[in-house]
Amino acid sequence: MTVKGGLTVAKYTIGVDFGTLSGRALLVDAENGRELADAVMEYPHGVMDREFCATGETLPANFALQHPADYLQVLENVIPAVLEKAGVNAADVVGLGIDFTSCTLLSVDSAGTPLCLLPEFEQTPLAYAILWKHHAAKKYADRLTKVARARNEAFLARCGGKVDDEWTFAKMYQVMAEAPAVYAAADRFLEGGDWLVQTLTGTRVRSYHFAAYKSHFVAGTGYPKKEYFDAVDPKFGDTVLQKLDGELLLYGERAGALCAEYAKKLGLCAGTAVAVAMPDGHAAGTAVGLSRAGDMFAVLGTSGCFMAVGDRDAKVPGICGTVKDGIVPGFYGYEAGLCSLGDHFAFAAANLTSPAYAREAAARGIGMLPLLLEKAAAKKPGESGLLALNWFNGNRSILVNSDLSGCFVGLTQATAPEDMLRALLEATAFGARNIIENFEQNGVSIGRIIATGGIARKDPFTMQLYADVLGRPITVTKTAQAPALGAAIGAAVAAGVHATPTEGIERMHADADRIYTPNGASFAVYSDLYAEYKRLHDYFGRGDNNVMARLRALAAAQKGN
Amino acid sequence: MTVKGGLTVAKYTIGVDFGTLSGRALLVDAENGRELADAVMEYPHGVMDREFCATGETLPANFALQHPADYLQVLENVIPAVLEKAGVNAADVVGLGIDFTSCTLLSVDSAGTPLCLLPEFEQTPLAYAILWKHHAAKKYADRLTKVARARNEAFLARCGGKVDDEWTFAKMYQVMAEAPAVYAAADRFLEGGDWLVQTLTGTRVRSYHFAAYKSHFVAGTGYPKKEYFDAVDPKFGDTVLQKLDGELLLYGERAGALCAEYAKKLGLCAGTAVAVAMPDGHAAGTAVGLSRAGDMFAVLGTSGCFMAVGDRDAKVPGICGTVKDGIVPGFYGYEAGLCSLGDHFAFAAANLTSPAYAREAAARGIGMLPLLLEKAAAKKPGESGLLALNWFNGNRSILVNSDLSGCFVGLTQATAPEDMLRALLEATAFGARNIIENFEQNGVSIGRIIATGGIARKDPFTMQLYADVLGRPITVTKTAQAPALGAAIGAAVAAGVHATPTEGIERMHADADRIYTPNGASFAVYSDLYAEYKRLHDYFGRGDNNVMARLRALAAAQKGN
Repeated sequence: MTVKGGLTVAKYTIGVDFGTLSGRALLVDAENGRELADAVMEYPHGVMDREFCATGETLPANFALQHPADYLQVLENVIPAVLEKAGVNAADVVGLGIDFTSCTLLSVDSAGTPLCLLPEFEQTPLAYAILWKHHAAKKYADRLTKVARARNEAFLARCGGKVDDEWTFAKMYQVMAEAPAVYAAADRFLEGGDWLVQTLTGTRVRSYHFAAYKSHFVAGTGYPKKEYFDAVDPKFGDTVLQKLDGELLLYGERAGALCAEYAKKLGLCAGTAVAVAMPDGHAAGTAVGLSRAGDMFAVLGTSGCFMAVGDRDAKVPGICGTVKDGIVPGFYGYEAGLCSLGDHFAFAAANLTSPAYAREAAARGIGMLPLLLEKAAAKKPGESGLLALNWFNGNRSILVNSDLSGCFVGLTQATAPEDMLRALLEATAFGARNIIENFEQNGVSIGRIIATGGIARKDPFTMQLYADVLGRPITVTKTAQAPALGAAIGAAVAAGVHATPTEGIERMHADADRIYTPNGASFAVYSDLYAEYKRLHDYFGRGDNNVMARLRALAAAQKGN
Repeated sequence: MTVKGGLTVAKYTIGVDFGTLSGRALLVDAENGRELADAVMEYPHGVMDREFCATGETLPANFALQHPADYLQVLENVIPAVLEKAGVNAADVVGLGIDFTSCTLLSVDSAGTPLCLLPEFEQTPLAYAILWKHHAAKKYADRLTKVARARNEAFLARCGGKVDDEWTFAKMYQVMAEAPAVYAAADRFLEGGDWLVQTLTGTRVRSYHFAAYKSHFVAGTGYPKKEYFDAVDPKFGDTVLQKLDGELLLYGERAGALCAEYAKKLGLCAGTAVAVAMPDGHAAGTAVGLSRAGDMFAVLGTSGCFMAVGDRDAKVPGICGTVKDGIVPGFYGYEAGLCSLGDHFAFAAANLTSPAYAREAAARGIGMLPLLLEKAAAKKPGESGLLALNWFNGNRSILVNSDLSGCFVGLTQATAPEDMLRALLEATAFGARNIIENFEQNGVSIGRIIATGGIARKDPFTMQLYADVLGRPITVTKTAQAPALGAAIGAAVAAGVHATPTEGIERMHADADRIYTPNGASFAVYSDLYAEYKRLHDYFGRGDNNVMARLRALAAAQKGN
């Protein structure tokens, strides 16, 4: 509430979260983050990973595209919807913020129009939005990695030692190689979030956060140099950097004012502050309250993401990167990840179970995973004598090795399916503990841990297990739409309601829903098991025995036979 | 056929196999082993492991007893039955042989009557036959082991470094401790097979083979010395050796002549040669043709047993023992084992499967194991990238360590249940290859491999996989009742139809049913996988990382909490 001319005037912001399948608007009180209304809309074209909308043809393997018109349609639906639901006047909405999946890449002409919306490129798949999980640029990523290694490029150390096929340059390079006309016609390549902000405001700014995390941009030195791209491919080197040109802004900065055309379409006032866009994961981090050095944000879902903020440019080996102002301006941002988390539990429910349990689950009308969790929860730490390595999808942090694989040790005739599930749960928690210890051993103290994601919200047994393994309390926050709240906080800062991102976060972040406190006896047992985990981790992961890589190579060779 | 006074006279022998649940007679042509008739009868009292027949009371945990009257009843039924089925005259039956489970131990009075048949001991469980799988003497075995280790007893090296609770002295010691009146009244303790031979012939002889494998008897030096037993317990040392007194005979030797009383009961002629008894496993080995140095006999069932015969007193580490004349007189006998074989496959079908497969198996009306085997057989060696260690029940050979446990390495999200089953199948085959290589590296060349047991007879996929892993042909024989055939061969030798056991085996052994020949390409892939198996085998099994023992200890501690 703000007092204006004797009257109390509410101020609101709207955050819009562009996820993989849908967009969601959240209208909040800009002072304290109280959530008033939300509205969601699925993308009409969804994810195009099989059929291409323009021709009905089948897309090549591993393509994942989106239609940028869908993003605008979502905005035009969900913003009027939250205004109406909340009963808020457009005049009281002081800011609009957007978060977006990343790297989701669009090629645009000099007017900012996506090339796929032009008749001449309507039937070219790579002229559409290339979604973050498009995995068809692997060979281009490999080439980029190979040359970077040969040249010992400094940026490699900040991105886990390789160029990922999900990132900007792999995607741009694929467009140049496979859709050269699109590449030639592209005035710029933009992240989806940046394109929306540009469309709403008419100003050409980009988010520093997209650039730092997906395009190897480093504060002070900028993008990788032209010489590197020349070495990859001279044609690429000639053009790539100019197609990324644009001013970079930080989270909470004002990108511009909402233009009249879109003010009308969205039911807002022209001139409303529009914040610079941000990656969805970081938006969630601000929403849960990353506002002090040492705060860690754990997203526990299909995979696991661990973001922390701190006050030093620490060199932490095996993490995805240390980035100045990376997550919250004013802090260094650190990110580490577990390739597979909920994936492991889904695997167990699908493959590590018994016909008797299948009958029991059917008779009780519950799923296999809930049944296994129920049985696992009835046992004590260490009781099964089983230990696992959680590397079914490889290891991101701290070994950065996709050739690693999963392992069980301690199987006996008495091992039950729930023991295997529990060992996998524990292994992911040991992986998290390893990430945290690695941070601390390299100068980044971790204080509060705040969790979100499907597992954090829905699975108290697993969350208690995590607290017991880590030996630290874990806070789970109330909000079910953290990314949109983070975008709304960014909008409030951009609108000047709060002086700094940190202040905005402190005042608007989501409240704690539940705090899981470690049990001392369980922590002691888990510490013994964790020591065993570490020993196996180092044996299989640090070169003593590269059997996992050899088994993967043999499997690939035999499949080809 | 033998020509006698111008007439062709057939000669027959009968072998009777006393298994765990039933006894089976087989009547064969004593010249060539041709099988004419068989008959089986279950023991009326079965295995007493819960309810005690004499009182209806519940037996203590891990007891497993039998009623010796059942053995006589079986003889009186199955021998007349095979005579009748075959249409053979008693006068043409020249020999009778018996094989028996071991160590199955009976206490008898000076007349040879089992104490349980006397009114004063009728209600004492330990006065009955103590079956091989009675596992209630563990603490007595531990005491025997501890003292043997402290005294560095030479016999330890021949029995895997410990006294097993299934063996003679542990059982006798338990009787002394828990049923002292039975122990005091026992003139002798006899293996079940020896007791039957004594009953049929009235002669007090024992089988060398029982003594060598279950009572630590060593040719030349005899049983362990009185001083050892004194150190275990002075009361035990005073009496134990005299209760085992008796002449030892070798396989194929004549124990005596069938007495008139039992000739009448069995429908045979008085004076018919009765061979010394033999352990059932060894009887099966002679039946399939162990007759040349280097022959190996693989029994592939719930567990795996690998027996070989050779011409040298080789010191092979990690096997269950090298025994002069141990399996076939004239050879050294070597035995090695895998604790768990079919057990692993049953585990996989019960615990490493999916709800979808459970539905598929139900819809097709087949079991889970056949379904998994069918799917596993459709894949190529190495294709899954998965490797296992087959130690769910510990490792007997060549590590002799019951604290070891099972392991999987190479799990990914793409791993399917049939991959895990197949990895377990392969691991047991790698275990067999390791046993064979260990023999050869220690001076025992292995030539022919002959397999029997449920898996050998019923599962061609697994047998081909074994041949491919071993890189050697494997012969599976026709007979479904190898032990009884081995006993019948022993009877023919005892009756003088053949001059030596080797000659008897050569002429009477079962024919090959099928020979599995290794595929060269598969052998090459499996050799790579075997190298990985060996590396993990040594890492977990030879002290680099005793994590498996620590996990078992933790599990035991937590279960007790």
